[in-house]
Amino acid sequence: MKKTLDFYFDYSSPYGYLASERIEALAARHQHEVVWRPVLLGAIFKITGQSPLLDQPLKGDYSSKDIARTAREHKLDYHHPQPFPIAAIAASRATVWFRDNADSEIRANTGAFVHSLYRAYFTLGKNITEADIVAEAATPFGVASNTLLQAISEQSAKDALRREVDEAVKAGVFGSPMMIVDGEAFWGDDRLDQMERWLERGGW
Amino acid sequence: MKKTLDFYFDYSSPYGYLASERIEALAARHQHEVVWRPVLLGAIFKITGQSPLLDQPLKGDYSSKDIARTAREHKLDYHHPQPFPIAAIAASRATVWFRDNADSEIRANTGAFVHSLYRAYFTLGKNITEADIVAEAATPFGVASNTLLQAISEQSAKDALRREVDEAVKAGVFGSPMMIVDGEAFWGDDRLDQMERWLERGGW
Repeated sequence: MKKTLDFYFDYSSPYGYLASERIEALAARHQHEVVWRPVLLGAIFKITGQSPLLDQPLKGDYSSKDIARTAREHKLDYHHPQPFPIAAIAASRATVWFRDNADSEIRANTGAFVHSLYRAYFTLGKNITEADIVAEAATPFGVASNTLLQAISEQSAKDALRREVDEAVKAGVFGSPMMIVDGEAFWGDDRLDQMERWLERGGW
Repeated sequence: MKKTLDFYFDYSSPYGYLASERIEALAARHQHEVVWRPVLLGAIFKITGQSPLLDQPLKGDYSSKDIARTAREHKLDYHHPQPFPIAAIAASRATVWFRDNADSEIRANTGAFVHSLYRAYFTLGKNITEADIVAEAATPFGVASNTLLQAISEQSAKDALRREVDEAVKAGVFGSPMMIVDGEAFWGDDRLDQMERWLERGGW
């Protein structure tokens, strides 16, 4: 059985999107499997007292440029979406539903579903807070729109996402993306390279 | 004449210290000269509404580990000092006095003086808020203690540092380290590699 690499991300996080495009190849190079863990930074920021990155004076302006520069460097498509930021509740619930599904085929498509939603938001500007848009993104994976809409409106889906966020905070997650691998936490798209060197050396 | 690379840093910033140890070699590889620009994040945070990194819930704990890990990776000595954080007013004034000095020999030693202070704090745990400690660090560069103590107590030295911080904010500086080179801003020790690739390509 492969070891796991927990990838914590918020669908509203530009750096989460950028990292999501590289994380699977990186994990695979080191015989790890990505576990997709959507979180809601809005809920986490209430605990940590942080504010959304792009709202911060000076830092926000810089970050807009840094995101564009980092996307260019990795040759990734990026168009800053509106509305932004969003609370991607439907998308996050749907992702947990994919990942923890009884159907192994649906489970296996979790990563592809995440990419589909992230790209819908950050390259096509689709508003993934809308449940219909999320359901549409699920259909290529053999999940009927109605099935998904029904699933994410159930109490169990709400509870599952709430538990997900609680567990993330317990694990020390305060931002997006955060990766936890073999007990070591790395925060930010800009830690992917360092994490890879860490995996290569088997720790320090 | 060499082009300049503005290196903005707070003496209380662990990542500023880590970056200061690599910035000159990086700049030299690309025919740039480092201009040392001390700032006071305390003053800047009042404008931006940020709080000191290590005070932030979850993020603070993570950052302590990340600093140690990053120091190990670059084989740099690091011992988390007490008191921390500090408002390094004397050290910052002294640095501006070195950098803008009429005596070219003193000016030329600015970088070495910065390293001496940063290492005193982050490797030896010396309290560089004390003017005597700062003056002691200046003596190897032919500056008598009394000369330095006198210089940094003058109104002109106070004004010079205040101007320095104001200009930094105008340039968009909100953290430490920040580098501005050829009009492009990079924030964080973790942007040194990206900055170097940017310099190699002559922009994007």
